[in-house]
Amino acid sequence: MEETQENIQFQLTTELIENVKALIISNDDEALKSLLNEFHYADIAEILDELNFEEAIYIIKLLDSETTSDILTELDEDVREKILDNLSAKEIAEEVEELDTDDAADIIAELPEERQEAVISQIEDEEHKAEIQELLTYDEDTAGGLMAKELVKVYGTWTVAGCLRRIRGQAKDVSRVHSIYVVSKDEKLIGRLSLKDLITAKSEEKIAEIAKDNVDFVNVNEDAEEVAKVMAKYDLEAIPVVDDEQTLLGRITIDDIVDVLKEEAEKDYQLAAGITQDVDSDDSIIELTRARLPWLFLGLLGGIGAFIIMEGFQNAFDKYKVLFFFTPLIAAMAGNVGVQSSAIIVQGLANDDVKGSINSRLIKEMFLAALNGIILAVFLFLFVWGYNGDMDKALAISVSLVAVIIIAGLIGTFVPLFLDKRGIDPAIATGPFITTSNDILGILLYFWIAKLILGI
Amino acid sequence: MEETQENIQFQLTTELIENVKALIISNDDEALKSLLNEFHYADIAEILDELNFEEAIYIIKLLDSETTSDILTELDEDVREKILDNLSAKEIAEEVEELDTDDAADIIAELPEERQEAVISQIEDEEHKAEIQELLTYDEDTAGGLMAKELVKVYGTWTVAGCLRRIRGQAKDVSRVHSIYVVSKDEKLIGRLSLKDLITAKSEEKIAEIAKDNVDFVNVNEDAEEVAKVMAKYDLEAIPVVDDEQTLLGRITIDDIVDVLKEEAEKDYQLAAGITQDVDSDDSIIELTRARLPWLFLGLLGGIGAFIIMEGFQNAFDKYKVLFFFTPLIAAMAGNVGVQSSAIIVQGLANDDVKGSINSRLIKEMFLAALNGIILAVFLFLFVWGYNGDMDKALAISVSLVAVIIIAGLIGTFVPLFLDKRGIDPAIATGPFITTSNDILGILLYFWIAKLILGI
Repeated sequence: MEETQENIQFQLTTELIENVKALIISNDDEALKSLLNEFHYADIAEILDELNFEEAIYIIKLLDSETTSDILTELDEDVREKILDNLSAKEIAEEVEELDTDDAADIIAELPEERQEAVISQIEDEEHKAEIQELLTYDEDTAGGLMAKELVKVYGTWTVAGCLRRIRGQAKDVSRVHSIYVVSKDEKLIGRLSLKDLITAKSEEKIAEIAKDNVDFVNVNEDAEEVAKVMAKYDLEAIPVVDDEQTLLGRITIDDIVDVLKEEAEKDYQLAAGITQDVDSDDSIIELTRARLPWLFLGLLGGIGAFIIMEGFQNAFDKYKVLFFFTPLIAAMAGNVGVQSSAIIVQGLANDDVKGSINSRLIKEMFLAALNGIILAVFLFLFVWGYNGDMDKALAISVSLVAVIIIAGLIGTFVPLFLDKRGIDPAIATGPFITTSNDILGILLYFWIAKLILGI
Repeated sequence: MEETQENIQFQLTTELIENVKALIISNDDEALKSLLNEFHYADIAEILDELNFEEAIYIIKLLDSETTSDILTELDEDVREKILDNLSAKEIAEEVEELDTDDAADIIAELPEERQEAVISQIEDEEHKAEIQELLTYDEDTAGGLMAKELVKVYGTWTVAGCLRRIRGQAKDVSRVHSIYVVSKDEKLIGRLSLKDLITAKSEEKIAEIAKDNVDFVNVNEDAEEVAKVMAKYDLEAIPVVDDEQTLLGRITIDDIVDVLKEEAEKDYQLAAGITQDVDSDDSIIELTRARLPWLFLGLLGGIGAFIIMEGFQNAFDKYKVLFFFTPLIAAMAGNVGVQSSAIIVQGLANDDVKGSINSRLIKEMFLAALNGIILAVFLFLFVWGYNGDMDKALAISVSLVAVIIIAGLIGTFVPLFLDKRGIDPAIATGPFITTSNDILGILLYFWIAKLILGI
């Protein structure tokens, strides 16, 4: 063993990309191989994401399939799609043979349907093929869609020594052994033990004696986000997956859960910002427009709604021009309060933190919004009165502000709770949807209350 | 081993809480113990979060410290603080003795400074004490703040058989063995191997022969978020931590990283929604007001700014009233575009996805915003022209909209990139900060361009 150390910090520099491109142009395969072999496959994937399509294919064909299969799993989805389009079914099958069943099934699932069958038929290992086919039957958002078939399984009747001997074979196919699952004769999950338990036990003991019987598990149809929540809460690094009859089907590992959590957080964040999910800053202008324009269009319609409301009040307000100058303030406050209250509910729902009835939530938000509203309204009242000298108008604007903030807070609280009860993702309520509806409603309420107070 | 199975789904019901409260009132310790022993400590922590303070203390004093120490790590921070306030230094030290060094240090770090020393001096295990003291010296947002001292370490000169024999002792103190770290005689990290490698190797082989020398590691001063990113990218379940001399200091496990990722996502989400971090829906109205009011106040100031701008243009009001009716639309669009473009940049920065110069980003955003703006403006033009019959006004409003959207997009792109370059968290740019500044700027630009086009 040498004493050279690989530092974790990989830097994707322009020099590196240029260097790779130059080696491709000069067909210097040996130098290219020895350069790339220094890097982790996740880093090579980052390099490939920066190359043009022909260059990426060149590297994929150059490296051995053990490395390229891992690279494929790490590529941007659109880059991977293009590369797979240019590989034959046979070549894809070779890549897939190198992967764990869950990654293999994910890659095959991305292919067009007719190619899926062509690739599967080219997989030589019959067991691997059957396992991948099984995984393809599960919905990708369920435990079945996340799990891999690779796991280490022992029978309760084995001894520690016999078990160690036999799992040497199984463990070679499993890249990380977290737990060893103990099953009954008919393959039902009945317990687990760790490698540590095994190596610290006496060799003549029976597995059944040292195994833990309180094994956590999830059903194969459980929602993926629910699995992620459970694994994060109980600090689990792997969890076995069973069917309704408790038959052990596979296992889910924490690295897949990290991906689920990241995707979920990104989705919520993008929804809150008014972007349909699944775009990133490197996507094309057309893709980004498709993700952004719908929400902007909603905002435009909201603005037109606000225009129609204000126009409806125009005759009454020749005398009260100043009221119109405060509509952006009213709309902004309605939007901000709505976003705040909905975000707190959305996050509470995500963390299973929202207890109590909808009514008690609404009452709490009412008091909260009233408190915030009154503090802000007092400030606004003093400003308008001081600036404008007209106490009546100052009063009308300030009272309206309190009302608008309370209503906006209640809507922001109610809508996500309502959506959640209906089984709709409450995160859609935090974005432009709530801002726009609160804008319109806020302006309507504002003019209506001002009219009432000023007796127009 | 029994065949009973513990399903993963824990439901925190009102009945359960009432049942626990009733058992506390009737002092039925045995029934309470046997009820709670059915649950995972993370579930007991959820129960405690729902009880009042005296009830929580009752349970903490009832259960053995092996369980209660784990419960303490899972409690809401404010509940934990109250409970620790009511335990003696000796009692806290007993809890801390049961915990891994990282959790122990985290709990002690939350105590007031004078209590920290009192608790540490009561820890009986001298090695555990020294390790906790070492961990307390690291900043909580660094690798040192995340790592635990518990790990399994072997010397390269050992044989597999000797190694297995010796690590049986070490492994008993380490709840999860991910990797076995190989060090040189002077404790420098030189490689790693897995338990699997060890049990599948021949017993007479030397560790140095079977160990992998390309071991990933992080420096003890590395930023915690950076460590999380690296572990997620390379699918690592544990990573060793070293000092500048490559001395092995500790290791970080993936479950801590899951927490870092979750906290980071929540922080960004809350900043985008205009809430200062670290509140949840169950906090008091006062705490929630403190988290929400500052951003609302910023919005109020923005609204007052908009008022002053509009007042400045009021002389044009009489002939062009309709212009004022579109200010909410303009402000909303400026805000929405700004939030969208900043969110894409913030997320790209978080994923290390933002490549190329600031200038190339700005040019891309300019084209993108122009494309979106023109599509929306054509729609708005047709609406205003059809509704109002005045082509000049329709043109002025629509051209302004395009300009406002472009400027808002550029600001939304530039501000987070600028903050990031300055080492400030760019996530603060997506919230009310960008909305408010874009509101004001949008309205100013709108009136200015409209005035120019209409020749007022």
